[in-house]
Amino acid sequence: MNLNLTTGIIPSLNISAGLLGFFFVKTWTKFLEKSGFLKQPFTRQENAVIQTCVVASSGIAFSGGFGSYLFGMSEDISNQTADHNPQNTKNPKLSWMIVFLFSVSFLGLFTIVPLRKIMIIDYRLTFPSGTATAHLINSFHTPKGAKLAKKQGRALGKFFTFSFLWGFFQWFFTATDGCGFSSFPTFGLKAYDNKFYFDFSATYVGVGMLCPYLINISMLVGAILSWGIMWPLINNRKGDWYSADYPSSSLHGLQGYKVFIAIAIILGDGLYNLVKILSHTLFVLYFQLRNKMAAQALPVVGNDNTPTPPHPLSYDDQRRTHLFLKDQIPNWIAISGYIIIRVISSAILPHIFPTLKWYYIVVLYILTPVLAFSNAYGCGLTDWSLASSYGKLVIFLIGAHAGAAHRGVLAGLAACGVMMNNVSTASDLTQDFKTGYMTLSSPRSMFVSQLIGTAMGCVISPCVFWIFYKAFDDLGVSGSQFPAPYASIYRNIAILGVEGVSSLPKNCLTLCCVFFVGAVVINGIQDVVGPRWGRFIPIPMAMAIPFYIGAYSVIGMCVGSLILLVWRRIDREKADAFAPAVASGLICGDGIWTLPASLLAMGGVKPPICMKFLSREANARVDDFLL
Amino acid sequence: MNLNLTTGIIPSLNISAGLLGFFFVKTWTKFLEKSGFLKQPFTRQENAVIQTCVVASSGIAFSGGFGSYLFGMSEDISNQTADHNPQNTKNPKLSWMIVFLFSVSFLGLFTIVPLRKIMIIDYRLTFPSGTATAHLINSFHTPKGAKLAKKQGRALGKFFTFSFLWGFFQWFFTATDGCGFSSFPTFGLKAYDNKFYFDFSATYVGVGMLCPYLINISMLVGAILSWGIMWPLINNRKGDWYSADYPSSSLHGLQGYKVFIAIAIILGDGLYNLVKILSHTLFVLYFQLRNKMAAQALPVVGNDNTPTPPHPLSYDDQRRTHLFLKDQIPNWIAISGYIIIRVISSAILPHIFPTLKWYYIVVLYILTPVLAFSNAYGCGLTDWSLASSYGKLVIFLIGAHAGAAHRGVLAGLAACGVMMNNVSTASDLTQDFKTGYMTLSSPRSMFVSQLIGTAMGCVISPCVFWIFYKAFDDLGVSGSQFPAPYASIYRNIAILGVEGVSSLPKNCLTLCCVFFVGAVVINGIQDVVGPRWGRFIPIPMAMAIPFYIGAYSVIGMCVGSLILLVWRRIDREKADAFAPAVASGLICGDGIWTLPASLLAMGGVKPPICMKFLSREANARVDDFLL
Repeated sequence: MNLNLTTGIIPSLNISAGLLGFFFVKTWTKFLEKSGFLKQPFTRQENAVIQTCVVASSGIAFSGGFGSYLFGMSEDISNQTADHNPQNTKNPKLSWMIVFLFSVSFLGLFTIVPLRKIMIIDYRLTFPSGTATAHLINSFHTPKGAKLAKKQGRALGKFFTFSFLWGFFQWFFTATDGCGFSSFPTFGLKAYDNKFYFDFSATYVGVGMLCPYLINISMLVGAILSWGIMWPLINNRKGDWYSADYPSSSLHGLQGYKVFIAIAIILGDGLYNLVKILSHTLFVLYFQLRNKMAAQALPVVGNDNTPTPPHPLSYDDQRRTHLFLKDQIPNWIAISGYIIIRVISSAILPHIFPTLKWYYIVVLYILTPVLAFSNAYGCGLTDWSLASSYGKLVIFLIGAHAGAAHRGVLAGLAACGVMMNNVSTASDLTQDFKTGYMTLSSPRSMFVSQLIGTAMGCVISPCVFWIFYKAFDDLGVSGSQFPAPYASIYRNIAILGVEGVSSLPKNCLTLCCVFFVGAVVINGIQDVVGPRWGRFIPIPMAMAIPFYIGAYSVIGMCVGSLILLVWRRIDREKADAFAPAVASGLICGDGIWTLPASLLAMGGVKPPICMKFLSREANARVDDFLL
Repeated sequence: MNLNLTTGIIPSLNISAGLLGFFFVKTWTKFLEKSGFLKQPFTRQENAVIQTCVVASSGIAFSGGFGSYLFGMSEDISNQTADHNPQNTKNPKLSWMIVFLFSVSFLGLFTIVPLRKIMIIDYRLTFPSGTATAHLINSFHTPKGAKLAKKQGRALGKFFTFSFLWGFFQWFFTATDGCGFSSFPTFGLKAYDNKFYFDFSATYVGVGMLCPYLINISMLVGAILSWGIMWPLINNRKGDWYSADYPSSSLHGLQGYKVFIAIAIILGDGLYNLVKILSHTLFVLYFQLRNKMAAQALPVVGNDNTPTPPHPLSYDDQRRTHLFLKDQIPNWIAISGYIIIRVISSAILPHIFPTLKWYYIVVLYILTPVLAFSNAYGCGLTDWSLASSYGKLVIFLIGAHAGAAHRGVLAGLAACGVMMNNVSTASDLTQDFKTGYMTLSSPRSMFVSQLIGTAMGCVISPCVFWIFYKAFDDLGVSGSQFPAPYASIYRNIAILGVEGVSSLPKNCLTLCCVFFVGAVVINGIQDVVGPRWGRFIPIPMAMAIPFYIGAYSVIGMCVGSLILLVWRRIDREKADAFAPAVASGLICGDGIWTLPASLLAMGGVKPPICMKFLSREANARVDDFLL
């Protein structure tokens, strides 16, 4: 949730979840064993099931849209956009958020259950993240792996504590906005005004250590391009391109360029990948089906164009297949579950969002199973979930159809929620099935674990968000501690869909088109030149984030990259083994600190000191004033 | 000089000097060898000679009194003391400082030269520091030692760079006093007002890593006792014990209690050690002389009461003795040099300090050779130089005799200078002779190196001080960046000698007596219980420093101690090998940064930003004001 509301960039936390799950349960079982309460050892299957439950639960924080569509409906975000119509907002409330999540989060699971055999056994898709997690869990359950995991767990704990205490220490100096380490003009006051500073956030450093170098470099390039070059240049046109009377947060002013150019890049990149991965998926699917038919006619294993292994199954894979097929989930459960949930949610959703008419829901429920399957399939091939791309597409389409008169903004965002939840839980579950397959875990227990995890997430995530929402007045405000960049972006996509491009400031549409095409072209070049040279070409999607939120998070992430780079140069093996643990510790410690911080804020306890940064002239005036 | 002017505590930098000397010259000779300019290898003797020269040169920064008696004469310090008589001040000037140092710094060398054989060969005194340095140099010149030294040199370089850059970074945020990291209220604003904060100074952390734990803990105890308990209590008596009208820097107010209680402890500790070490020295000397006579009568090696080795000389020691005696410094050079310098300085000194009458100089020049020898001898036994104790004693005596009418303050401080320079250079040189003996270096080259080093110090130190003096307006002001604590303390000792105790505020004399006796008693207890329990008893001398300058330097030093403690728990061997290098790097980097910092200050370049710490209420007012 902390990541959602700060950068909006969420690195894969699967490995941390696996590590922590193993570490805590191992410690717990050791304790029980010594007390004589437990006779059985801690197994791989248990580890995989715990991992699945944790990831399902925390996945809701992302797919629940607390940093994007759901929070984008609120008045706080609406006040920063072009239309201030209170009719078009729906403020977060614990009750409707939980009901909404329960009614949309389970569909994806039941959609995918009957199809799991096709993807895991028949097509043998790779699912890179799921496979990696499985390898990790398998490694824990070797004597050497368990020892390493223990050390990694300790490193995680150490950096968790450090990061937590650091957050605590910083708190004391943050009496108001603009105080404290998060406003530290590391590179001077002029750079600070252009959002170039290191804000000493352990979260960003940790995220930077987990993200590939290319993502961080892309973001840095984006930050320099936008805050270093473009915004100052556009700012000079103030009064010409846009009226100087608008407040700085107005989308008719400079803020509009920032938001819409970022949207253009994100849409361009998203569309390119949507087309690319969908066509790839369909292409592979077509060959697989053809081969399958051919294989049924002739008992010869198919041609090399497909990921089907051309050699007979290894002993490992035979056992895995056997176990995977043994413990079935009856199809009637999947299908009846699907129908029941569909009926209930169709009945509930229009009550929560009156603008989301029944025919939208019908269209959505026809589309989602198809998209859920194709997303899970694409994810199996490329590890890239298109959930948010589908979501943005839906915002656009529904928003445009509903129109301004029928509060299309809300309808679009709600539809996005339905779509994203379905599609992303479906691909997550398939990843977990792959993990289960590799760790010899029963698919039935994985499925139950996913159900429990999702149910937990549907309650926990809204509650955590609620604490943030109640504790911090400036949640979602650009430039504050929790800017929640995507909330604003999603809402503006909806507005764009409803109102069209006429509301954009001067030349903004031209710039948007340039960057949209640019994003597509850069992606194309990356695919043409291949991975060898492609790793020097920035990723447009990553470049777009700092356009909106500024360079400070990027600089934190680059510090993380730099630390990792130096560490790997000093001791590559150790860095590779411990960097994920250290990074997770940094992220989690800072994230958990926001919990007591928000409780303090809710209790009215305010930090006692302001660490303020003044220019020498301002300081002289202040000193005179204070005397 | 940086240490002189900040804490006044100077840890032994011999090891750093040896390490740096080895590292740089080794790099340089490697380079020369590869270029073919050099055929001979770099030897132990060369290393010892370089080391001696560096230590002699840097020793002048201490014995020259830039942080004590010499700066104590200035108007800046005088303005903070009870008597503001400009007649009683002598402001630093490059010309007279250099002349003064040249006329007093060489006497000690010539005093000790004829006596070196007695201490090194005949009595075989241990000289712990000199021996340690020799072991270090010897270890460098083994293949394993050279490799370690290279690594240590690199660690030193890394932390030097870090510390320098950290100083540079801090500079930007220090627009005026009370800005920047050096005013960071780490433990809150209330603790900051009582000088309890960590000031992020790399120097203090480094000093803390070099000083024994006991010193740091003693200082912490002193800080808590004084700033945590006593000063707040005395402050409550304001208006009763002393008039509330005095400015906070007045010695008739709270400042008086701080300074004079610190002086009482320092004098008590100094006197105890003076008596103890002198009596121990005389006792051992008496037995040695008796044994020598006995040995001349009977060819049997003497009794066990003396440090003379009861067993015959080892092969190593035979070679060392042979070499030490081979390369003699003719006595006529030592004696004629002594007489020439004595005549010249007797002629010059009254011109620099008219109040230092000729009869004082005569008395001083009778006393100094005796004290120089006994100090060198005591130093050989205990490693404790009493130079500053003798100095304080002389301030007292001469000040009291000269009296207020004859500007006794200046006379006392000047006499202290003559005494300290003589006595401390004498003991330093004897330590160096021991190093030379152990490293098979020629005593003649050691002596020449000392002469050159001293001459360099007599020019370099005043120049460095001059830069500080010109660059920082608030040099020596209590609470500023460079409080130079001992300058004020030495001047106040002189005033005490001249004016007696009548000028002290109410109850101050009682408190001083209590603490004077306390210091003596604690020292006595320490000696009685022995080292086993003694290491838990704080050292009064160390406790007194924070009485005057506040707890912030102590907290920095304790951070250093803590780092060392943790490091040693993680990897004891590595910590022991690298901690001195790391600490030296931290101290030197920060120290060298003050050079560009003072040049910037002299050039009128001021830091652009003020990092200010305001309470929440003050911050709200300031925000309203700035809007």
